[in-house]
Amino acid sequence: MNDVNHFLSQYVQQNAVQKILILSDQKVNDLFPDYFTFFSDDVDVHWIKLTCDEKIKDIATVLEIWNFLLSHQFDRNSLLINWGGGVICDLGGFIAATYKRGIRLVNIPTTLLAMIDAAHGGKNGINLQHYKNTIGTFYLPDEVLIDATFLNTLPQEEVLNGFAELIKYALIADAELWEQLKKMQHLSANQIPQLWLEKAANFKKELTKKDLFDKNERQLLNFGHTIGHAIETFMQMKNKPVAHGFAVVQGICCEAYISHLHQFITLQQVNEICDFIKKQYELPLFCEEEVSHIAKNCMQDKKNLNDDIRMVLLKEVGEGIVKQSVTLFLISQSLSKCFLSHPHRDIQ
Amino acid sequence: MNDVNHFLSQYVQQNAVQKILILSDQKVNDLFPDYFTFFSDDVDVHWIKLTCDEKIKDIATVLEIWNFLLSHQFDRNSLLINWGGGVICDLGGFIAATYKRGIRLVNIPTTLLAMIDAAHGGKNGINLQHYKNTIGTFYLPDEVLIDATFLNTLPQEEVLNGFAELIKYALIADAELWEQLKKMQHLSANQIPQLWLEKAANFKKELTKKDLFDKNERQLLNFGHTIGHAIETFMQMKNKPVAHGFAVVQGICCEAYISHLHQFITLQQVNEICDFIKKQYELPLFCEEEVSHIAKNCMQDKKNLNDDIRMVLLKEVGEGIVKQSVTLFLISQSLSKCFLSHPHRDIQ
Repeated sequence: MNDVNHFLSQYVQQNAVQKILILSDQKVNDLFPDYFTFFSDDVDVHWIKLTCDEKIKDIATVLEIWNFLLSHQFDRNSLLINWGGGVICDLGGFIAATYKRGIRLVNIPTTLLAMIDAAHGGKNGINLQHYKNTIGTFYLPDEVLIDATFLNTLPQEEVLNGFAELIKYALIADAELWEQLKKMQHLSANQIPQLWLEKAANFKKELTKKDLFDKNERQLLNFGHTIGHAIETFMQMKNKPVAHGFAVVQGICCEAYISHLHQFITLQQVNEICDFIKKQYELPLFCEEEVSHIAKNCMQDKKNLNDDIRMVLLKEVGEGIVKQSVTLFLISQSLSKCFLSHPHRDIQ
Repeated sequence: MNDVNHFLSQYVQQNAVQKILILSDQKVNDLFPDYFTFFSDDVDVHWIKLTCDEKIKDIATVLEIWNFLLSHQFDRNSLLINWGGGVICDLGGFIAATYKRGIRLVNIPTTLLAMIDAAHGGKNGINLQHYKNTIGTFYLPDEVLIDATFLNTLPQEEVLNGFAELIKYALIADAELWEQLKKMQHLSANQIPQLWLEKAANFKKELTKKDLFDKNERQLLNFGHTIGHAIETFMQMKNKPVAHGFAVVQGICCEAYISHLHQFITLQQVNEICDFIKKQYELPLFCEEEVSHIAKNCMQDKKNLNDDIRMVLLKEVGEGIVKQSVTLFLISQSLSKCFLSHPHRDIQ
């Protein structure tokens, strides 16, 4: 029995859990059909296997699963296990938080992104009218169980997707790690030292402990996400969805450039960041009309207060600064500088 | 400018609130069309007026209002004002808790029930498949503003509805108040000393402070509610909805009788409770088949752990005791003893 199953077996016994729903990504099920071995006769285990994309993170899916829990008489002592990536963790977290005002929750993230980010910190969310995570709560899982086995099965796109959060972590909090990252030629799962994962996850845990409700320090984690989310929403609307991390690295490029325009970091530092990202990631370009559409999407960001667009900037490379007020004009300008499709220009 | 408007005027200014949604009961609007006077030019105020009954407390209404907030670009600094009774407070509380993971919330309860109960304590909820408050969260309002003006316009049914929570409070925590209540011939709004409202509201506030997530002491407040909710759900399913308080006093009778069967209080004390309640309230009776249906509904109660039905009982009159395990059989028996339609028998 591996560590995950060992933990679950004890957890279920100690808390007299009688009903479990394993909410999982169909793909993960197919790859690891016999992963769970902790079951006992006393426990009633149900499965819901979802074909995961952002589209299923909506109220229709939530309603279906709420009804499932109710009709199977799940109560507050029942356990929801999220087994998958960010979509599963976000969706299942919202369901666990709201069904009977909260049931037991354990996350078993299977992607690099979820291991570093989505599985921790208690933020859950579903989309509304294509706007990412517009509906959600703060609800901490009882436990996050990390099993590196899953990393080896990830397609390269998923590795890059998770790597975005490592790049973000390095830029806002760990200049030394950034120096190491910069030197990497090709990002791959087996090149990620366990130490890096732990550093990033612990940094998030610390911020969450200080500021669960995301009013102050925790907002640091949002670096790259204001414009990143706006790009994600835009691509979703165009029916050309991009992975979260790909949108985030685009957001990082733009927000690094805005950090320069706000006189924090040098243009050379911006170029280093953008060059590294563009070398590793294949990213979409936008025409002028699209740029202005994306910039407007930033108005919907949850961090905004009133009509002020607020984002995290880089005070230095390795140090973020929260709650910086940025104009719509600068956002458009940064998108044009970094990702304009025609005419294509380098940052000058 | 009255106290409520005075508070709101200051609150909006101090927090630089720019957008407000007043979610209100249409009836209250009609009675007090010019109640709010705190508006200023800087603030964008929207209204949603609902014709209130339990049926609107569902995900369809929530979705409509989420969409309204999103399309009017409400952000986390925006304010939702709940102006109405329990339905408005429960529904609006859930919306405020989940939109962008939480926006500002102020409750202005207009019914006796909401002033004592629903507006405080941070529990919100919507119904699922006729099951009351199956979906919800814990989310405290920034403020609960009490204005006794509203009490004078309440129909007698609404007064009785609120009185149920006062009776409950007396039975679980205030033997002296119970002695005074017992002597009342006719319950009416202007007979309720301000002191009683304050005592009941403070008792709830104290329990909430100790136990927001309703794991221990706070469960005391659930006296009468396990069977009460089951009756409310049943009547809703029969399309003969009853007011919450009317279902709760029926629950109180049954759960008092179960307290006797569990050897806590005397049969005479049970009879005093039931006689007082039946004198004040006109209550439905149930045939045997209905009794068994209601008893089964108790299985859906959020306080249950696994298959064990858990409820609050009276250890003494004036002292509740939480987490008592009760069989389905005793629940049926109590319903039959207190509210069987045919043959009608007094408690013996």
